[in-house]
Amino acid sequence: MPRFRLTLEYEGTPFVGWQRQDNGPSVQAAVENAIHRFCGEPAIVVGAGRTDAGVHALGQVAHVDLASDPSPRTLRDAINFHLRPAPIAVLDATSTSEDFHARFSAIERSYRYRIVNRPAPPVLNSGRVWWIRAPLDVSIMNDAALRFVGQHDFTTFRSSMCQSPSAVKTLTELTIRRQGDDVIIDARARSFLHNQVRILVGTLRLVGEHRWSVDRVIAALAARDRKAGGPTAPPQGLFLISVRY
Amino acid sequence: MPRFRLTLEYEGTPFVGWQRQDNGPSVQAAVENAIHRFCGEPAIVVGAGRTDAGVHALGQVAHVDLASDPSPRTLRDAINFHLRPAPIAVLDATSTSEDFHARFSAIERSYRYRIVNRPAPPVLNSGRVWWIRAPLDVSIMNDAALRFVGQHDFTTFRSSMCQSPSAVKTLTELTIRRQGDDVIIDARARSFLHNQVRILVGTLRLVGEHRWSVDRVIAALAARDRKAGGPTAPPQGLFLISVRY
Repeated sequence: MPRFRLTLEYEGTPFVGWQRQDNGPSVQAAVENAIHRFCGEPAIVVGAGRTDAGVHALGQVAHVDLASDPSPRTLRDAINFHLRPAPIAVLDATSTSEDFHARFSAIERSYRYRIVNRPAPPVLNSGRVWWIRAPLDVSIMNDAALRFVGQHDFTTFRSSMCQSPSAVKTLTELTIRRQGDDVIIDARARSFLHNQVRILVGTLRLVGEHRWSVDRVIAALAARDRKAGGPTAPPQGLFLISVRY
Repeated sequence: MPRFRLTLEYEGTPFVGWQRQDNGPSVQAAVENAIHRFCGEPAIVVGAGRTDAGVHALGQVAHVDLASDPSPRTLRDAINFHLRPAPIAVLDATSTSEDFHARFSAIERSYRYRIVNRPAPPVLNSGRVWWIRAPLDVSIMNDAALRFVGQHDFTTFRSSMCQSPSAVKTLTELTIRRQGDDVIIDARARSFLHNQVRILVGTLRLVGEHRWSVDRVIAALAARDRKAGGPTAPPQGLFLISVRY
């Protein structure tokens, strides 16, 4: 069966997350249903990252096997047609070989977290940022973030529901920069634990408000205990930016 | 009476425009009502730019005179509180003198128009961009745009409803650049005619699609006739970025 690789953008707000679930509409099910409406085949769409409820994507990658063999461009346009009005779009579709697997072939995932840091509530980016009123000290946040880069046991920074057999992960990037009222946090790794970026951001926020010292962050990482970490940042500031193969 | 200067962000979608009108909710009326709810005074809010229905603002400037004299910070937070859930926020409030007039003291207004130029529909920026599928030649668009910079009679590029006594305006900037799938058009002038930016963009789009030559653009400008210009680009891609005094 021909295999296709899809690059997807979506707004996470109305979905229970990427993965098909019984308790509400998922991105995966919406794409699968659109493919079914187009070519009449039941399709299984495999995504690179299982984004949580409310998390957005600018470059999620997925693959799907079809019995029929439409041109990639036709497939892209047809899925987009049948997705309407769901806030999901196929940016790109390409033919790929059977040894490409959207999840297991990925060598790097890039996430971005956006904070709006100002007294006034977000308006044009409402639902796509985390609003923090108190001024954040981005320089000390970056200091603390550096301690997470590299290979560590991230037990403190994963959801207690995380099903990954190992909590040891290698963060290749965790940088924070201010751009006007925006504070942008970029994170890259081969793979992430459940809620890892959001718990890291929720913890760094405490550092940026001078409520936690960098030493406390170091101790939290060493504790290997979710209770030692900061709170989980809300989903609406998080974007899956891209996946590298 | 103390005069205050306000800097405002808003999403234009639900409004008939900046200006108070009988046919629906306006940004001006929403802000005036919020001030009234806060200090019990009827207030007149004067804006720098009368943005049209559906046009957004990142930095609209307005002034208002109050009998009471709240601290600027209190005024900002109180208006924001009473504006909820309207997609309008006061980013900044400052005390100003009586010779400051939001509209007449302005020496430059900056607008940005955002196009998403790709086969897939916009999702995360839906309602905040103009979607154009056909690839735009940004370099030739820039060529054409240069012909508009400087002082010209812009009769061809203003709404037939425009009430300005003169169609002669001086464009200090009109630049176009590509940023990934986005095409960003920046326009600056002391003041603009009604629909001027949107008609310029609607015309430049024809150039970018090679349906109009640069010569045709030059001829259209010389014609001083709205019928010689291109169509008006839709409002949702336009943002009032800032006002200089």
